Amino acid sequence: MTAPRPTVLLALVFGIGLAAPAQADDPLPSWNDSPAREAIIAFVEAVTTEGSPDFVPPGDRIAVFDNDGALWCERPVYVQAAFIADRVAAMVEDDPTLAERPGFKAVLDRDLKALADLGEAGIADLVAATHGGMTPEAFEAMARDWLATARHPRFDRPYTELTYQPMVELVDFLRGHGFSTFIVTGGGVEFVRTFAEPAYGIPTQQVVGSTIALRFEMQGDEPTIVREPRISFIDDGPGKPVGIQSHIGRRPILAVGNSDGDYEMLRWTTAGAGPRLGLIVHHTDADREYAYDRESPVGRLDRALDEAPDRGWVVIDMKRDWESIFPGSSR
Amino acid sequence: MTAPRPTVLLALVFGIGLAAPAQADDPLPSWNDSPAREAIIAFVEAVTTEGSPDFVPPGDRIAVFDNDGALWCERPVYVQAAFIADRVAAMVEDDPTLAERPGFKAVLDRDLKALADLGEAGIADLVAATHGGMTPEAFEAMARDWLATARHPRFDRPYTELTYQPMVELVDFLRGHGFSTFIVTGGGVEFVRTFAEPAYGIPTQQVVGSTIALRFEMQGDEPTIVREPRISFIDDGPGKPVGIQSHIGRRPILAVGNSDGDYEMLRWTTAGAGPRLGLIVHHTDADREYAYDRESPVGRLDRALDEAPDRGWVVIDMKRDWESIFPGSSR
Repeated sequence: MTAPRPTVLLALVFGIGLAAPAQADDPLPSWNDSPAREAIIAFVEAVTTEGSPDFVPPGDRIAVFDNDGALWCERPVYVQAAFIADRVAAMVEDDPTLAERPGFKAVLDRDLKALADLGEAGIADLVAATHGGMTPEAFEAMARDWLATARHPRFDRPYTELTYQPMVELVDFLRGHGFSTFIVTGGGVEFVRTFAEPAYGIPTQQVVGSTIALRFEMQGDEPTIVREPRISFIDDGPGKPVGIQSHIGRRPILAVGNSDGDYEMLRWTTAGAGPRLGLIVHHTDADREYAYDRESPVGRLDRALDEAPDRGWVVIDMKRDWESIFPGSSR
Repeated sequence: MTAPRPTVLLALVFGIGLAAPAQADDPLPSWNDSPAREAIIAFVEAVTTEGSPDFVPPGDRIAVFDNDGALWCERPVYVQAAFIADRVAAMVEDDPTLAERPGFKAVLDRDLKALADLGEAGIADLVAATHGGMTPEAFEAMARDWLATARHPRFDRPYTELTYQPMVELVDFLRGHGFSTFIVTGGGVEFVRTFAEPAYGIPTQQVVGSTIALRFEMQGDEPTIVREPRISFIDDGPGKPVGIQSHIGRRPILAVGNSDGDYEMLRWTTAGAGPRLGLIVHHTDADREYAYDRESPVGRLDRALDEAPDRGWVVIDMKRDWESIFPGSSR
């Protein structure tokens, strides 16, 4: 019997797993070797190699990422829905009459069917009441406070620790190759902006999202912006290409989504001339995260999954392709 | 008599002015020594010196610039107004019945009073008809083509050569010190985006402006964005802080304007905590550019000028403070 090498011995003694050592220059250490990983690396190499027919100048290297379900966990409910639920509970404590409003009632009863039946007006009332009538600074402080204390019901960690480590690495990898990285989210832009920079290194000005109307006014001698109780833009589905054009002003070359709400963004991005990459995060890992697609009320992925092969969109299989899912976690 | 030094001799022979040689590291060579120049340099030094009580981390170094009259010439009319006038003429050539619409008629007659009397609906009709009903790509191509050929009536140069060289240097100086530089313009965002990058090094996603509504649709199998014939946001006056908050998501630390349309942006920017700088470009040079302020129909500067001393806003006196005005020009 040959004596084990010292590192192996150490591993045995301390019970440390002996994974293949990460190469110092591995840009995507949390990804397993997979077609998706290869497609990403080949694409980045093609668009950044000067003289390559696929070379794209840095200014045009725009990458857009959906947030819920593409950059962080969206189950069992959207994080912002959990935020709204807690906010509703707090508001009803202050003013019990609110409990009779249909949106408030549905949230308090955790009545998903009633929520689904609210319709646009009911949803708007709920979002307006919970998100409007304050300054952006006040809203931001409230959202930050909530994110600092709220915990995911299953994983018992702050939501901001339930970002996807492989995606954080991808965002960073792209940025290191001259890409400008944007979030394009159906969520409220000012909610997502409170954590986008610490979580992904994406500054506030690179977050595009749903908005409520803002109004400028002088409060005494104090210039003030007030969030009005009214949704002004829904950045979902066909809203995503519109949000991209309004905010960024040029077509991305790379788009990442995980649901049919990202379908139009994927279409818009990959229909452009020259090299384009569309990526779909497919939630296939019930053990480490969640497994859902066609039938899910949250993050339904049906049409985009059907069309992916023909459109050349690369499907990321979370279970197969990701060596780990959450930051600082072995799973 | 002492023999003149060779350089002085050369200067005499060739009639070259002997200005003090520009220092290689002079960041603002087109600026004369002046209180404005000193205030800018002191501000940038304060916010970029680590350990200084006024230090601002790079992510928060947001600078916003008005465009018309602050970064380029806005007289005798806004450049976009000249664009609209030429577009109206071309459209009427194709369809003479258009000449009867009040907005079209006022433009064709160069009837400033009729234009002023159009009211919001008339202006909207005009902008919608000339700017709407096409894709952003088609609009951009049209604007680029026009900018490539149109010439300023007095200076007989393309409008894109009538940027202010000292301001181009300022934008560059700030960017070199970790600032993110944004245009916040009352002009149409997609018009300004066509030249912001070549003219100022400001990419499309850092231009905030007035917008017309966009719609996503499938044209056959082609995902398409269409500009609707409807103004959706006016980024002027109280609209500027709103545009900033919507698009950038944080309060700037430096704002540059030249008219009362920038008043609220200056107020909003300089009311924030910590070091702030408000700059006003005052058009004082009828010889090299234009002289106008309180009575001007274009770029009226009245209230902001009155309040500048008390609010600590620094007024740039173009005639006194700028050694040259336009790029590649001795004047």
